[in-house]
Amino acid sequence: MSPKITGELLRQLRQAMKNCKYFSEPIQAYIIPSGDAHQSEYIAPCDCRREFISGFDGSAGTAIVTEQHAAMWTDGRYFLQANQQMDNNWTLMKMGLKETPSQEDWLISVLPENSKVGVDPWIIAADQWKNMFKALSSAGHSLVAVQDNLIDAVWPDRPERPSTQLRSLGLDFTGISWQDKITTLRAKMSERKITWFVATALDEIAWLFNLRGADIEYNPVFFAYTIVGMNTIRFFVDLKRLSDPAMREHLQLDSPSKPELSIQTFPYESVYTELQAICAALGPKDKVWICDKASCALTQVIPKTHRSPIPYTPLCLGKAVKNATEIQGMKMAHIKDAVALCELFAWLEKEIPNGNVTEISAADKAEELRSQQKDFVGLSFPTISSVGPHGAIIHYRPLPETNRTLTVNEVYLIDSGAQYVDGTTDVTRTMHFGTPSAFEKECFTYVLKGHIAVSAAIFPNGTKGHLLDSFARAALWESGLDYLHGTGHGVGCFLNVHEGPCGISYKTFADEPLEAGMIVSDEPGYYEDGSFGIRLENVVLVVPAKPKYNYRNRGSLTFEPLTLVPIQVKMMNTELLTQKEVRYTTSSWKHLTQVELPEIHRIYRKCYIFVIYIVIRR
Amino acid sequence: MSPKITGELLRQLRQAMKNCKYFSEPIQAYIIPSGDAHQSEYIAPCDCRREFISGFDGSAGTAIVTEQHAAMWTDGRYFLQANQQMDNNWTLMKMGLKETPSQEDWLISVLPENSKVGVDPWIIAADQWKNMFKALSSAGHSLVAVQDNLIDAVWPDRPERPSTQLRSLGLDFTGISWQDKITTLRAKMSERKITWFVATALDEIAWLFNLRGADIEYNPVFFAYTIVGMNTIRFFVDLKRLSDPAMREHLQLDSPSKPELSIQTFPYESVYTELQAICAALGPKDKVWICDKASCALTQVIPKTHRSPIPYTPLCLGKAVKNATEIQGMKMAHIKDAVALCELFAWLEKEIPNGNVTEISAADKAEELRSQQKDFVGLSFPTISSVGPHGAIIHYRPLPETNRTLTVNEVYLIDSGAQYVDGTTDVTRTMHFGTPSAFEKECFTYVLKGHIAVSAAIFPNGTKGHLLDSFARAALWESGLDYLHGTGHGVGCFLNVHEGPCGISYKTFADEPLEAGMIVSDEPGYYEDGSFGIRLENVVLVVPAKPKYNYRNRGSLTFEPLTLVPIQVKMMNTELLTQKEVRYTTSSWKHLTQVELPEIHRIYRKCYIFVIYIVIRR
Repeated sequence: MSPKITGELLRQLRQAMKNCKYFSEPIQAYIIPSGDAHQSEYIAPCDCRREFISGFDGSAGTAIVTEQHAAMWTDGRYFLQANQQMDNNWTLMKMGLKETPSQEDWLISVLPENSKVGVDPWIIAADQWKNMFKALSSAGHSLVAVQDNLIDAVWPDRPERPSTQLRSLGLDFTGISWQDKITTLRAKMSERKITWFVATALDEIAWLFNLRGADIEYNPVFFAYTIVGMNTIRFFVDLKRLSDPAMREHLQLDSPSKPELSIQTFPYESVYTELQAICAALGPKDKVWICDKASCALTQVIPKTHRSPIPYTPLCLGKAVKNATEIQGMKMAHIKDAVALCELFAWLEKEIPNGNVTEISAADKAEELRSQQKDFVGLSFPTISSVGPHGAIIHYRPLPETNRTLTVNEVYLIDSGAQYVDGTTDVTRTMHFGTPSAFEKECFTYVLKGHIAVSAAIFPNGTKGHLLDSFARAALWESGLDYLHGTGHGVGCFLNVHEGPCGISYKTFADEPLEAGMIVSDEPGYYEDGSFGIRLENVVLVVPAKPKYNYRNRGSLTFEPLTLVPIQVKMMNTELLTQKEVRYTTSSWKHLTQVELPEIHRIYRKCYIFVIYIVIRR
Repeated sequence: MSPKITGELLRQLRQAMKNCKYFSEPIQAYIIPSGDAHQSEYIAPCDCRREFISGFDGSAGTAIVTEQHAAMWTDGRYFLQANQQMDNNWTLMKMGLKETPSQEDWLISVLPENSKVGVDPWIIAADQWKNMFKALSSAGHSLVAVQDNLIDAVWPDRPERPSTQLRSLGLDFTGISWQDKITTLRAKMSERKITWFVATALDEIAWLFNLRGADIEYNPVFFAYTIVGMNTIRFFVDLKRLSDPAMREHLQLDSPSKPELSIQTFPYESVYTELQAICAALGPKDKVWICDKASCALTQVIPKTHRSPIPYTPLCLGKAVKNATEIQGMKMAHIKDAVALCELFAWLEKEIPNGNVTEISAADKAEELRSQQKDFVGLSFPTISSVGPHGAIIHYRPLPETNRTLTVNEVYLIDSGAQYVDGTTDVTRTMHFGTPSAFEKECFTYVLKGHIAVSAAIFPNGTKGHLLDSFARAALWESGLDYLHGTGHGVGCFLNVHEGPCGISYKTFADEPLEAGMIVSDEPGYYEDGSFGIRLENVVLVVPAKPKYNYRNRGSLTFEPLTLVPIQVKMMNTELLTQKEVRYTTSSWKHLTQVELPEIHRIYRKCYIFVIYIVIRR
């Protein structure tokens, strides 16, 4: 992987920072966050501005360019990758390490007095703007909203914004009609005396209308905004996408069942002026809900006295708790996914000794096998197919120039997932096709112990996921080891593979309590730089637990693994496992036998607990 | 325990709320926090305003009185106690339960439009003021600083503010001179470009000057403020206390070694005007450090542009990490404390069958035995001596009218501690002098497992205590049980038994990372309302750990128990303990044998792991 050469680009950007075409006075620093106007994690090519300017294409990172410096903040998953992708015009700021300054502190330390710091108000979230604004102001600097994006100004061949075909989902996949979702939303608005709700997150809008798109790779979403009042629904989207009669029927555009369920459509770009018009007509007591992570630009349209910012919208919370139809769909998706991965592992075992399997060809084979499954749509994120030292690059993605051959001498880590119409998967397995070293087995076993400690945990209703994070680390900590990423994230149902408002992380304190029906990942790891990486990830469903007692009638919860892909026994040092852990690893697939499927074949193979091979093809 | 009759008092308070002597317009609600002007947890009798108006004397609680309602917010430790101490003019607001509204939400729900809510700005912390101000403003109400305290207005025989004799501590107890502490403080100020520091917390001032007082029961502190500049030290205290020649010598009042270490003394009350004068003379770049938990009154003297609020002051952080002298002192204090409690347990075992030991006489005996130890000063908090159902009242304190006799049929819980000149202790033991039930043993064993899980945990440098909280609960959770309080608090060295900035709690997210030398308690529990209470508490020292590996050279930490009091084996269901847990309980006292003392006798007794009986009297 050779770094992007950024000297000339940075020169142009710094020129733009002084160009009075964009503002009355030059700015001394420009912040380039990684998101789009919807604060999406994965973004369309036209929005990859941080990657364009720096070369670093990880999913999380913020660049800041001053007259003298260019610095990139990213987290432990990406330290190695960012170092490899950026040239030495850039300084890597390793988030989470004690010695790393925050963006605010760093700016204050490098800027001359009374500096102006610019940022695109559509790309920065309102809460981030607020924190940055406060920190800079208190140090005598100012934060300036630059309406023209300065990266776009130095990016001549920037791609167009995509507008893919929309797909409507019926009740057999969604369980709840969009009309009922609107009614539930309005009930929550009226409970909190809210008159308007502005939806800006793409997955929330897709979930609300039971629609999917393909505007952003791996994420079945589409560019849109929605504003819901007590009697109106305004939908902002490229209007060409609504011409198909079936789509018009799905949204009842021509014959709404009730007037309050009539959808008014507007061009995507008109959300700003339309929201301005709504705000101009607000009554003195009217309140507008908007997520505090929505763009600063849109948030500030709403006058402060009418603005009611919330950390998680009712759509986010509603989407997180899967209904019975969605849970059944997620289970089906995971069965299909397990079939594909078992086929992959059998193929790898046969082919690797021939020396012609590479990280890329293994990833391609995984995609090919998944694509043979029913209702496959695409991958849910770029496959991390990494062997030996590449496994330690936490979010490594094989490229032709880094592509490495799988051998019987190195640990192989594959973190992959797919979008099926019935659900989204995300699974990581780490395996060895020869003889793993004692240290590799030891680390694998600590990771497995952590994985089981979370997955088998019983905890009271109302517990937030971050309280479970240390369970995943205890075995590693005891030996002086750790990993520099969170333990789990929410998973959408045929939606984004990463979603809020729940998760399992030492960092996430604003997470919402876990509830039965929520779906999260459980993925501790261990990374030995320059040598190997280990991660074990299942997607797990929050389910009620029935322990012996029920303190204060609070009820208890636990997890049911949805992922059915076997875990390699060869990598375990079974002497380090307790009886209980052994029981867990051998019993957690049992419920599979209860699934009724056309055909179930079980083939035990020497290197897996189970290789389940289930044929559920058309 | 009969509740305080508060009807007439509330009538008088509500009259004061309408009395234009205090403000231009009547207020519709009055907030009565539990603290004093230093935001102390334990307070002097003259500051017990919340207790005076409501009858509830727990250590934490906030009362709000409106024209129609009187409500009290307190946490799980005090639900039963508050219910028993308050008459039915009062509504108990159980903090931590989902259905309980916050003070802000409750006020908004009960107040008429455009209400004024009053509070004494000396008693409310600046951060609390800010949150309350914001919430009330956004709902159209206002928060008003009422300079005259309205409780004092209806409290004719309010006690005087105490002014006890000060005690100076030499280097043999403190390890560091006050002059060196000032120098370290100034180095930190200059590192952060801070020109003034305002100290308001009583334990920080006592620690800084190596002084102790007895103004507040159980806390060896004295009423004072301090303002430190780069060249001046201003000390605000009742000047009568500084007349003793030895005290003048300790503070070098008459012949300072260096001009910048010369202490200027002022009357306690003049801090407000003196800070005003300092602020009037601030240069444009001058910054003043003040804790964000300092009083709103004093904080607002500092103009916002010069104010640099911090969650924990350098004194708080410096005090938390004990030096070698303090650690040695704490160890000695805990040896003496263990001797006293072993004597108590032997006495209880002999006397209880005679039927003449009560909660109060047991507590008195504990105090008598502690008072025989060298350098005993007093108790570090009111002894919780509770039998049977009283054990479930988490911070129960026996009173003549509630006093219960200890028998061989009920569980006995004693949570007690002392102040010695060399250190502070805090220990809880739960025991049965007959035959405990299977359920009592089961719960005790889960609590013990949680206690050990924290105490034996190994974790990376930089870990915050709240990440360890779930370890204490895992065994309880697995059986559907829990406890509604945190797991641990910082402990001072001959200072407050509760101190920041570290702790172990699911609630504390603003805690500072644990560091070697910090001292915290480890005290999980289980409470069966109306039946029994269980808690096991050791004070533990954070020490470096040396596990097998050292990931990224971060280093690891663990805990060393300072508490040496045995744990009753009879209460354990040993079948529920792992090998490792058994090893821990039998090995954790080993280091005692390495302590060189005039005499060490070990007497094994049937009901304890060890009864250590160490004679170290004068």
